[in-house]
Amino acid sequence: MRMYDLIMKKRNGGMHTEEEIKYIVSNFTNGSIPDYQMSAWLMCVYYKGMNNEETVWLTKAMANSGDMLDLSKINGVKVDKHSTGGVGDKTTFIVAPILASLGVPIAKMSGRGLGHTGGTIDKLESIEGFNVAIPEEEFINNVNKNKLALVSQTGNLAPADKKIYALRDVTATVDSLPLIASSIMSKKLAAGADVIVLDVKCGSGAFMKNEEDAKKLAQIMVDIGNMAGKKTYGIITDMNEPLGCKVGNSLEVEEAIDVLKLKDLSDEGYNNLPKGIKRLLEVSLTLASYMLMGAGKAKDFQTAKGQCEEAITSGKALDKFATFVENQGGNKSMILEEGKLPKASIVKPVAFSSDGYISACETSEVGMANLILGGGRATKESVIDLSVGIDIRKHIGDYVSSKEPFAYIYGNDEKSVEEAEKRLLGAYTISKEKVEASKIIKYIIE
Amino acid sequence: MRMYDLIMKKRNGGMHTEEEIKYIVSNFTNGSIPDYQMSAWLMCVYYKGMNNEETVWLTKAMANSGDMLDLSKINGVKVDKHSTGGVGDKTTFIVAPILASLGVPIAKMSGRGLGHTGGTIDKLESIEGFNVAIPEEEFINNVNKNKLALVSQTGNLAPADKKIYALRDVTATVDSLPLIASSIMSKKLAAGADVIVLDVKCGSGAFMKNEEDAKKLAQIMVDIGNMAGKKTYGIITDMNEPLGCKVGNSLEVEEAIDVLKLKDLSDEGYNNLPKGIKRLLEVSLTLASYMLMGAGKAKDFQTAKGQCEEAITSGKALDKFATFVENQGGNKSMILEEGKLPKASIVKPVAFSSDGYISACETSEVGMANLILGGGRATKESVIDLSVGIDIRKHIGDYVSSKEPFAYIYGNDEKSVEEAEKRLLGAYTISKEKVEASKIIKYIIE
Repeated sequence: MRMYDLIMKKRNGGMHTEEEIKYIVSNFTNGSIPDYQMSAWLMCVYYKGMNNEETVWLTKAMANSGDMLDLSKINGVKVDKHSTGGVGDKTTFIVAPILASLGVPIAKMSGRGLGHTGGTIDKLESIEGFNVAIPEEEFINNVNKNKLALVSQTGNLAPADKKIYALRDVTATVDSLPLIASSIMSKKLAAGADVIVLDVKCGSGAFMKNEEDAKKLAQIMVDIGNMAGKKTYGIITDMNEPLGCKVGNSLEVEEAIDVLKLKDLSDEGYNNLPKGIKRLLEVSLTLASYMLMGAGKAKDFQTAKGQCEEAITSGKALDKFATFVENQGGNKSMILEEGKLPKASIVKPVAFSSDGYISACETSEVGMANLILGGGRATKESVIDLSVGIDIRKHIGDYVSSKEPFAYIYGNDEKSVEEAEKRLLGAYTISKEKVEASKIIKYIIE
Repeated sequence: MRMYDLIMKKRNGGMHTEEEIKYIVSNFTNGSIPDYQMSAWLMCVYYKGMNNEETVWLTKAMANSGDMLDLSKINGVKVDKHSTGGVGDKTTFIVAPILASLGVPIAKMSGRGLGHTGGTIDKLESIEGFNVAIPEEEFINNVNKNKLALVSQTGNLAPADKKIYALRDVTATVDSLPLIASSIMSKKLAAGADVIVLDVKCGSGAFMKNEEDAKKLAQIMVDIGNMAGKKTYGIITDMNEPLGCKVGNSLEVEEAIDVLKLKDLSDEGYNNLPKGIKRLLEVSLTLASYMLMGAGKAKDFQTAKGQCEEAITSGKALDKFATFVENQGGNKSMILEEGKLPKASIVKPVAFSSDGYISACETSEVGMANLILGGGRATKESVIDLSVGIDIRKHIGDYVSSKEPFAYIYGNDEKSVEEAEKRLLGAYTISKEKVEASKIIKYIIE
């Protein structure tokens, strides 16, 4: 087999065999296929695509290129969740303790943030003492004992994906659906869970800007998961504004804890919640419900959702989260007591200069405002300030006035606060006519 | 300017500016743009193409990347000819002395053969003592003195093209019309002539298999030449069988000399010539006539053709060729006397096993038979045997019988002769019904 012939085959729209895909992945990873041939092939895939079988083979080959997490020592059906990345997404901190409190083991690997999107691992580090790199044995033991453990992705998880992604990043071959799908799913397959629930973000803060593309990506990933023998669901959720109210590492942990502390989720209790919290809750409960169904613990969505709500209102999910934090060396009083998480020194109210309705939000710009404050990474090497962020009180469809702050910026120096304020204000469009907010759950593939 | 953005632009079907093309060529040549970005960009060009302006800019940027031959010290309009490569093409040895004998200066750079196609420089080396690498000053002087000199392409002619071609060759981005056209034309522009006549081969032995593709390539090259200020003609000629009768280095020089020795080109004299010689003569006279017209020495094709025929029948072209050989250190008795050129030790007659008409020839396979004999290069490093080759007496449309040899193989060892015989026989298709040969001159762009 020669890489030249495989480039030619894909260039002319041919379909690869499993052997060919394995050959490409293993020989690129071990350095036998040079970057310049791989980038030519990736560009052919960009133009000609790959069918579902090819995409599954690519995903499996990348998953098999490094360590495969062995979760067989964990009792029960292991469930994992993945989000394609957005702004203000703290659902893992809500969903994981709910599931664990309902007896579903969650052995989760997460990543760090880059650019306008935040990362679960960074957020967890805002809890004093929390260790994101416990050894594999301790990780497995924690899951068996408490049903929940969460660690940073190890260096050798799907190294082929890492190497291919680095090349795509500099050759304009990132935005190809089969390549995006296989990249995400290779890490999910290597992470070893039995059931996978995918939260595919859609909108101005997401990689997929429109619902059609998000559906396509979700469908490919669901197909890959199912063909690889994992029960997989795809939930397409709105990312046309940040999820919830808060953006920033410790602020997001705080908001998740606020949700876990809710006591009344009756219709009346729910209706009294701020709009941002409602949207965050709806995404969290939907994801959690599908995870519960996937684990075989509930027969339909309504039953599952009821159980998840009960996990919150009973306080069981919050307890689970506190124990999880303690098990990984974290200070659990930061979870259970108010105001203990790191908070920036400057709190600046922000208002628009005119009155009207919020009609649109360039969500990635809100993420960039947080990055400017020091809360995000411009490059992989950036050191981040966990205490900064933004608390947004008004959402699409809400009326805003120049007399009332619509958000608060948390920062540690005046200059970055000023710059972040400009960026934040620039992210929003205000109109005279009232606009309906997008539905938060757009589509479900089961 | 960033290469990433330029890849993205071309990927999405955008058109580059001249500055962008210059940036790509100069930064790839100096090593600032890595191979993996260049190959991604080349694949985008393969899929999205380039318009004529972009192609001219690419051609000029590659031509300007190294030495530009300065022919200003040569008096008169300098005329060059280029063939896109075929089997048995020895027209340069006929055309160049005709033009020189008619007072048109020919300062020509040629290349060596690779794969199934032969090279002018290799063929000339079958003449004892001939020096293909005379210094530039001597080259210019010879043209001013004798109107004809021919040297091997120097290493620093269009180095950008050399580096880009090497990358295309291993990334399946060779067969792109704007890339082929700019590669050929960059060397022609750097070689400094005022008028360029292109012989675009078409058929089973050529890069362009069908007339439509050959026309497209010719049109692009003619457009590039004219836009770069060179009067350019494109002649599309048939390569569905070797040109002439002989294939092989010294054999081809011999056949060219035979043509230069013709004394009677009246209708009767022409009609008595073997079919292979007629076809070779028609291509040579057409190219020579357009070169003569381009040089301003004839007002129309018929006048030009008459002058070219007269250059042959008068013996002036042959004299010019002999002087040219002598000027570059060659033994001119090898030109003027019969049987002096190197000849292989074994001469094997080859016949088909059945009777019928030759209906098709896989011309590249005839080239491969010569390569097997040692007369061609499998790789750039191969050393070739100038004495071997094939003399083909029957052509498409001719009746062949198992009792009469249709060709003679010239080789120096039994094993390769046997292998070449199989390859040669396999190249031809014999049918019971008579087939018309393709027209030798298919189309002319002026």
